[in-house]
Amino acid sequence: MSYIYQLGERRVIDIIMHHLDTMPEMVIPFWDDVSAYNLGEGEIAILKSDMLVWSTDIPPGMTHYQAARKAVVMNISDLAAKGVKPLAILASLGLPKNMLESEVVEIAKGMNKGAREYGAYLIGGDTNETGDIIICGMAFGLAKKGKILRRDGARPGDILATTGTFGKTAIGLQFLLKDLVIPVDIQKVILNAVYLPQARLKEGLALRDSGAVTSSTDSSDGLALSLHDLSRSSKVGFIVDYLPSALEAHRIAELHTLELSDLVLYGGEEYELIFTVKPGMVEDAKKALSKVGGELIEIGKVTKDKEILFQVKDKIKSIIPGGWEHFKDSVPV
Amino acid sequence: MSYIYQLGERRVIDIIMHHLDTMPEMVIPFWDDVSAYNLGEGEIAILKSDMLVWSTDIPPGMTHYQAARKAVVMNISDLAAKGVKPLAILASLGLPKNMLESEVVEIAKGMNKGAREYGAYLIGGDTNETGDIIICGMAFGLAKKGKILRRDGARPGDILATTGTFGKTAIGLQFLLKDLVIPVDIQKVILNAVYLPQARLKEGLALRDSGAVTSSTDSSDGLALSLHDLSRSSKVGFIVDYLPSALEAHRIAELHTLELSDLVLYGGEEYELIFTVKPGMVEDAKKALSKVGGELIEIGKVTKDKEILFQVKDKIKSIIPGGWEHFKDSVPV
Repeated sequence: MSYIYQLGERRVIDIIMHHLDTMPEMVIPFWDDVSAYNLGEGEIAILKSDMLVWSTDIPPGMTHYQAARKAVVMNISDLAAKGVKPLAILASLGLPKNMLESEVVEIAKGMNKGAREYGAYLIGGDTNETGDIIICGMAFGLAKKGKILRRDGARPGDILATTGTFGKTAIGLQFLLKDLVIPVDIQKVILNAVYLPQARLKEGLALRDSGAVTSSTDSSDGLALSLHDLSRSSKVGFIVDYLPSALEAHRIAELHTLELSDLVLYGGEEYELIFTVKPGMVEDAKKALSKVGGELIEIGKVTKDKEILFQVKDKIKSIIPGGWEHFKDSVPV
Repeated sequence: MSYIYQLGERRVIDIIMHHLDTMPEMVIPFWDDVSAYNLGEGEIAILKSDMLVWSTDIPPGMTHYQAARKAVVMNISDLAAKGVKPLAILASLGLPKNMLESEVVEIAKGMNKGAREYGAYLIGGDTNETGDIIICGMAFGLAKKGKILRRDGARPGDILATTGTFGKTAIGLQFLLKDLVIPVDIQKVILNAVYLPQARLKEGLALRDSGAVTSSTDSSDGLALSLHDLSRSSKVGFIVDYLPSALEAHRIAELHTLELSDLVLYGGEEYELIFTVKPGMVEDAKKALSKVGGELIEIGKVTKDKEILFQVKDKIKSIIPGGWEHFKDSVPV
């Protein structure tokens, strides 16, 4: 019999799902970023719940306000990846009893800010007593049938793209956790990426309306793992031929002779959207994003073979499914 | 500046709500058992999230299966109290990495059972790494406008009633936590009350359809505290003249010379509904409950004064707002 640190998060989720009865009409299958309930007449309720755990998810220096805001934003990011506007947020809080009133106030303000930034309201939740600070956020939204950017629609020949660059949070976490030296002039932008992540909501809504997108996910577990998630759901592969690296990641990789692709592929806690576009509609998707101040970065193509490859000039290598995975990626107790 | 163990859960919730922007159209106000979002055309989405924390919520001997089932049932109980059928359940899990695969399987089966018993399906969630086992359940349902059993509709003169008796879980917890001696012939029913609580869903739906009910809540925090919650929301008081005590509670109170009213009022973790009925419609509510195999126990009346009183023969005393309150009811660290 195995311990779950030997299995890793994705295998644990597999095991759980194996023991669940499946709702007869699953509008969105398991393994997508969100869950859905069919309201009828073409209307779908979208539901998401995701938990923030202080001891494992919060880097040094992050305030209660920032953590609470992030707990809400990370749920909204999953809706954003589906092209769904968040309408209401709930939060179940686990709080240690020796917390200060002022810390609870900061958590309330942070949750409220996270919801209001994206037009939603916090409408309920509950409080519980825990050893660690736990913020379990829940996001609710509405979607029209057939207008949800699912994970399972990518087809060979589609273009693979992202809404932005990667690598800042990887650097930020190394700066905070491993004392990596970062030039002062980029510290603020790096720390903002870690402490104040942004959900790509207007980008997700624009992509949905463009009609150009065949599949989409957010990248909270890192670019590599998110590509594997898209691959699994869509039953396709990818060949990545352009690394969407942040300028700051370039600079730090050179400065410390770090592998740039590691910073970009395996960072995690970034909330860019990773999506596929019908081959003839890349310009439509670009225009849609540009209208809302966003950008589309082409990074590769969808392939029939279920491998995930990275091509640099003539060399091709596999992108292994690394990135943050709970249970596995910490030292066993 | 205060620590939250000095404030107690209800004050903490007050503080949090003070810092939240209120959604313009709150179909159900804060301080009710559930939250709601207006879908338009008379349709309301009902949302609830509530967290089960192993170290504070799980008594000795409770299995992973039972705990997971209860985490779902306690969310369904809140919908039941509103007369709302649960349709879909989500669960965010916090799992220690040294858990066994078999324990995760039991959690999955328990959650599934909790949902299926009440006709709902588990449709999503996520997993996280925590020190303690955390099961944050979320329930989704639909209601028609004006057909929700809110907390704020009780009016002076209404009849106060419950769907069943109280006291079994109080005894059960003392049996498990304090070695209270319980006769063998009632141990099973007592332990079932603790380990396999039932949500009063068919009762809640029947009461909703009866049109007789003016307010309702579940009693997960104990009868006394739930009466205070109803009082606060409805801006009324209660005079309780009949103690809805379980036969087992009677017997144990006599055997150990315990105060019966303490077992009944301050037990908690029971999921009976506490509700108020229009004075002329008690028979309608009784018939509605009887049709689904339930019962209505009249325990008192709604009063204009916001006090909560207990009358035994000529003596009247206050029912203080005891019952389980997080942060406060455990020894400060």
